[in-house]
Amino acid sequence: MRNIAIVVEYRGYGLNGWQSQKNGITVQDELERALKGVLGHDVRITGSGRTDSGVSARGQVANFYTQSDISCYKLPLGVNIALPDSIAVKKCLDVPESFNARKDAVKKTYIYRVYSSPTPSPIRRYTHAQVYKKLDAESMQKAAVAFVGKHDFRGFMSTGSNELSTVREIYECDVVASGDEISIIVTGNAFLYNMVRIMSGALVRVGQGKIKAEDMAKIIDAKDRRLVGKTLPPEGLTLEKVYYDIDGLR
Amino acid sequence: MRNIAIVVEYRGYGLNGWQSQKNGITVQDELERALKGVLGHDVRITGSGRTDSGVSARGQVANFYTQSDISCYKLPLGVNIALPDSIAVKKCLDVPESFNARKDAVKKTYIYRVYSSPTPSPIRRYTHAQVYKKLDAESMQKAAVAFVGKHDFRGFMSTGSNELSTVREIYECDVVASGDEISIIVTGNAFLYNMVRIMSGALVRVGQGKIKAEDMAKIIDAKDRRLVGKTLPPEGLTLEKVYYDIDGLR
Repeated sequence: MRNIAIVVEYRGYGLNGWQSQKNGITVQDELERALKGVLGHDVRITGSGRTDSGVSARGQVANFYTQSDISCYKLPLGVNIALPDSIAVKKCLDVPESFNARKDAVKKTYIYRVYSSPTPSPIRRYTHAQVYKKLDAESMQKAAVAFVGKHDFRGFMSTGSNELSTVREIYECDVVASGDEISIIVTGNAFLYNMVRIMSGALVRVGQGKIKAEDMAKIIDAKDRRLVGKTLPPEGLTLEKVYYDIDGLR
Repeated sequence: MRNIAIVVEYRGYGLNGWQSQKNGITVQDELERALKGVLGHDVRITGSGRTDSGVSARGQVANFYTQSDISCYKLPLGVNIALPDSIAVKKCLDVPESFNARKDAVKKTYIYRVYSSPTPSPIRRYTHAQVYKKLDAESMQKAAVAFVGKHDFRGFMSTGSNELSTVREIYECDVVASGDEISIIVTGNAFLYNMVRIMSGALVRVGQGKIKAEDMAKIIDAKDRRLVGKTLPPEGLTLEKVYYDIDGLR
């Protein structure tokens, strides 16, 4: 039995997120349908994790089992023809039979993109969140440092999640400004539900002068969702990359 | 009578171009409808020029006359609420009564965006054109220099146009590479029909090794559309900025 990993790009707008569901178009459903057409049998894929409706991915990873001998060069060509133009398989590779895209992910990088403008930007409507006034990127970068390390991120999780542990490790959190755009780049071992959108919301509040950069460490320690501010909208979020201890997916 | 200039951003996908027409959604129709709602009278706008279906704009400029005393701060807020989210007014200013957005434009900057990848990129589907193999950006930049200056661009015009003169002056033509993306940035006094998409197509052929960089000057001189290669698709093209000899629109 072959175990195949695929790297998938999708734009969030118009999709109802990753996970298979009865109504709406989901990435998992579309991939399984397209793979069935190419491979000739039912396919069940395992993603590295869910993404919400409206969230994009440049490097989502999933795996599935097949007895087909289709080459990893041809598979994306066939599958991409069958997929809607909001989803594409970027890469395909054979992995060890034990590989599991969810359990074996060692870290993930997300980018949250914001632009500041009093008027909306149609071109960035589905890739960036809008804030009305210019943000202080320097303060945001100072505050971002507080996220790095192992912390209990209970205050940065949407209610309704049911996690055994809310401790996560953030390896990098950078704020990059360019013109009226700010990108918040976060790499961590794993993330709680809505964690990046809530972290980004807190950093935007720092940029707006509503939270002091030097208070971010205290706010993390307080573990109180109410201190942090609102969850930013999904369209600004992209799952950039999922890392594995495996050649071709590092 | 007030003469008002507006700067407009729109994303090309899903729009049937700038110019008013019977079927489909056009930027001109949507703006005139939204302005009528805010100003309370019929409005006829003059754009700096048409853009084709699928072409985006960050800085399209148009003007119209009104006797309304609405402030230039409030007008975009009201109009943007009435516009579809693919179109937004970014700026509004009072201009001299003689100002005409088409006739008074002194130069325009377009950007054509390409990415190279064997698989499609859903996130860039409506902002970039895809080429399959990596392009030689250095050769493209060498060839781009040949466009600069005053030339008869008859060979870089789609058939069907009816121009008195096909001489245009290009002030700058730059090729900027970043990762798998290449931007072709062109500033000129005016452009023939499809000229930037045809110029970009010729530069892509240089990047593919199908045209030698040093032959571009000869190809321009030959004034033969057949030597140049295909017109690239509209989705890669953005009208970045239109320049006027007027404060606030330079």
